[in-house]
Amino acid sequence: MSSPRTATTSSYSITMRLHTVPDHAVVGAVATAIAAQGGIVTAIDVTESSHVRLVVDVTCSASDADHAKELEKAVDAIEGVEVYRTSDRTFLLHIGGKIEVSSKVPLRNRDDLSMAYTPGVGRVSKALAENPEDVRRLTIKGNSVAVVTDGSAVLGLGNIGPGAALPVMEGKAALFKRFADIDAWPICLDTQDTDEIVRAVELIAPGFGGINLEDIAAPRCFEIERRLRESLDIPVFHDDQHGTAIVVLAALTNALRVVGKQLSEVRLVVSGAGAAGTAIVTLLLAAGVQDVVVFDRLGCLVPDLEGLSPAQVELARATNPRGVTGDLRTALAGADVFIGVSAPGVLQAEWIQDMATDPVVFALANPDPEVDPAEAGKYAAVVASGRSDYPNQINNVLAFPGVFRGLLDARATDVSIEMLLRAAEAIALVVTDDELNASFIIPTVFHPDVPKAVAAAIRGDR
Amino acid sequence: MSSPRTATTSSYSITMRLHTVPDHAVVGAVATAIAAQGGIVTAIDVTESSHVRLVVDVTCSASDADHAKELEKAVDAIEGVEVYRTSDRTFLLHIGGKIEVSSKVPLRNRDDLSMAYTPGVGRVSKALAENPEDVRRLTIKGNSVAVVTDGSAVLGLGNIGPGAALPVMEGKAALFKRFADIDAWPICLDTQDTDEIVRAVELIAPGFGGINLEDIAAPRCFEIERRLRESLDIPVFHDDQHGTAIVVLAALTNALRVVGKQLSEVRLVVSGAGAAGTAIVTLLLAAGVQDVVVFDRLGCLVPDLEGLSPAQVELARATNPRGVTGDLRTALAGADVFIGVSAPGVLQAEWIQDMATDPVVFALANPDPEVDPAEAGKYAAVVASGRSDYPNQINNVLAFPGVFRGLLDARATDVSIEMLLRAAEAIALVVTDDELNASFIIPTVFHPDVPKAVAAAIRGDR
Repeated sequence: MSSPRTATTSSYSITMRLHTVPDHAVVGAVATAIAAQGGIVTAIDVTESSHVRLVVDVTCSASDADHAKELEKAVDAIEGVEVYRTSDRTFLLHIGGKIEVSSKVPLRNRDDLSMAYTPGVGRVSKALAENPEDVRRLTIKGNSVAVVTDGSAVLGLGNIGPGAALPVMEGKAALFKRFADIDAWPICLDTQDTDEIVRAVELIAPGFGGINLEDIAAPRCFEIERRLRESLDIPVFHDDQHGTAIVVLAALTNALRVVGKQLSEVRLVVSGAGAAGTAIVTLLLAAGVQDVVVFDRLGCLVPDLEGLSPAQVELARATNPRGVTGDLRTALAGADVFIGVSAPGVLQAEWIQDMATDPVVFALANPDPEVDPAEAGKYAAVVASGRSDYPNQINNVLAFPGVFRGLLDARATDVSIEMLLRAAEAIALVVTDDELNASFIIPTVFHPDVPKAVAAAIRGDR
Repeated sequence: MSSPRTATTSSYSITMRLHTVPDHAVVGAVATAIAAQGGIVTAIDVTESSHVRLVVDVTCSASDADHAKELEKAVDAIEGVEVYRTSDRTFLLHIGGKIEVSSKVPLRNRDDLSMAYTPGVGRVSKALAENPEDVRRLTIKGNSVAVVTDGSAVLGLGNIGPGAALPVMEGKAALFKRFADIDAWPICLDTQDTDEIVRAVELIAPGFGGINLEDIAAPRCFEIERRLRESLDIPVFHDDQHGTAIVVLAALTNALRVVGKQLSEVRLVVSGAGAAGTAIVTLLLAAGVQDVVVFDRLGCLVPDLEGLSPAQVELARATNPRGVTGDLRTALAGADVFIGVSAPGVLQAEWIQDMATDPVVFALANPDPEVDPAEAGKYAAVVASGRSDYPNQINNVLAFPGVFRGLLDARATDVSIEMLLRAAEAIALVVTDDELNASFIIPTVFHPDVPKAVAAAIRGDR
């Protein structure tokens, strides 16, 4: 059986079609067998019942793929039960893709066609040729975002390429619609060359109101974003950087509310100087953080460390005011906050004992965090992770839909760090003083106020 | 008033909001005034009726923008009637764009998110990294088409650029959905450089199952299509070329059924050697046409004519077997078929008298044809045009939705000329012998069999 600390998840949900002897008691035996193996039954449908046999569809959640196989084996081992076929619900859901394009206008007859297409559309195009500033009002540009990737740093999977990245980009597009009514379309680029990526995005930009860069590896992502922000007149936002940074700052703001400390006075240690780490530290500094030390694979970031990228050198210069040297454990002594966006297991839970009183630990590596959240909870006052099966999930879905809603509403041409700071504050403030506690520092992504509050903050509503 | 030969069209449909004296007789006076000016009232709504005034919304179709202004003036001139505001229905329809993206999967709760997005989507991406051939099955690639333009040859408007072309591409995407359930997304490129266009399309190709090139000027479009067909493993189809050619061949097949002539025996004259003309002639030759003479601005196409593009030289070599020289009028003498994809007014109706018996005239320049269809009808046995207000409208909507439906269904990697020939035959055959006559050589775009028959022909179903 799989590790007991991993909860079941519907992302490993399977439906088994069973052929059984014609005895309804067997259904109970199946449910019992699944439960005994740590699986969770979410649905049982008897789809055929005759004096010869029963056909039963059992849907259950497992911890992971191996666990799912074990559940299948356990059910198949029951006397009188045969697993005829097992379907993976996540794969079933993906067949045919997850998003579609719909027409917002009727196309019932010739009259409809003559307005939405030729000849009527010609007048609209002519008007746009004369008044290009109307394009956001009269076309999808006003509400559309390109979700652009090169497939080089996809989730925890790494460099899997543009085709394999497509399901993630589709999911992102679906979330854009669900949470902010934005029409996003995936653009998976068949190149990992910085110049080519930049040029491709510049070339497709006329049809979009914003560019969401996604899962592009560091340090390439920094240059791509910088160059696109300079050349384009629509906002460019690398979600892995700034989306994460916004949510981390929001969560940290509330974690410090819980422990009664000030952002400008705490000592922070950040593990990970990739896309997310760099953006988090940059935003924290802008928010008033004074004392932050950054670690990467190479060790503690100082400007003369060998092998740093230009972005990391810049980061090293802006951080570590006390000139800390040594390893992560040394740096943690007396620190108030640990933020990990690096790799599984880099933090040993016991080290948290050496941190300042009421330490805050964000272990955000996905899918396996820097430290087991339950273990960290033995020593830390507040723990957050990227996982949905523990409290305080740091989830970018809290930020990016509202961010782009606000940018599109404002017809913004750029994204400023002030916008990001306001967005983080807006997310933090969705959690009321009454709700706030060590296990609830961040709202759920389904809280309807979140995207609205973020959009208003981005727009700068008063 | 505008020219009497131009019919009213809902593409010039306006809604006038009127404030009138509180006398319902005025409504009749308004309708009468509009009709007297040649407008067509399609709706009257009295939205407010008090003892002080009436508020009336009158919707009517005009011939063109000037005519719409005249209707407004005529109504405003009625005693007791004031035109408070006039809305253009075509522009109203375009506000906010014409297409949107929807999620095909539920996103109600955390479980849904964990299947459609992280962590579940990671398993699908991992599977695709291991088995790339599954990408058409598990993503939108299986049903998506990029509608790509550089905005260089948009409708009759010419080189208006990518932003102003967007409403046309959106309309096309809406038609893809309406007629073939295909998810198409506009890609408006900010370049008119052949190399850059080719490279941009290559780079975005991983996310699409097909490329529909649209409104790209000749001769650039030929090289772009050829190079993309060589480099990509998804079908590339320039609709202005091949969509038009398919529908023209279908219409010509049926026109010849009407007049009882054989494709291999007729003499044809084609006016226009741009994107459409070149593709039409190429397809006609593949269909068995033996005798076709092509005219361009420069005159009759012969290989040594000065100023021809490489594509036109090729065209000149493949045509004009009798070595015709002289002007269009000379070439028309004794010809069975005229096909114009050139410019308004190049054909004088009287010249048709010199053609063979039962001449066929396709005057397809948009929006104003080579000869007025009504005038041509005095001399020709069959007349077709691009206009919806005359019989026999040659409309690409008959072809491209079914073409891409068939290509996607078949997971085609390329488009062959045999597919185009089969598609043309399929469209022609939708018109039954009983239905076929000189005013009905081509089915309406709303005939539900058309896209199905075209898709089956493309797939090569038996």
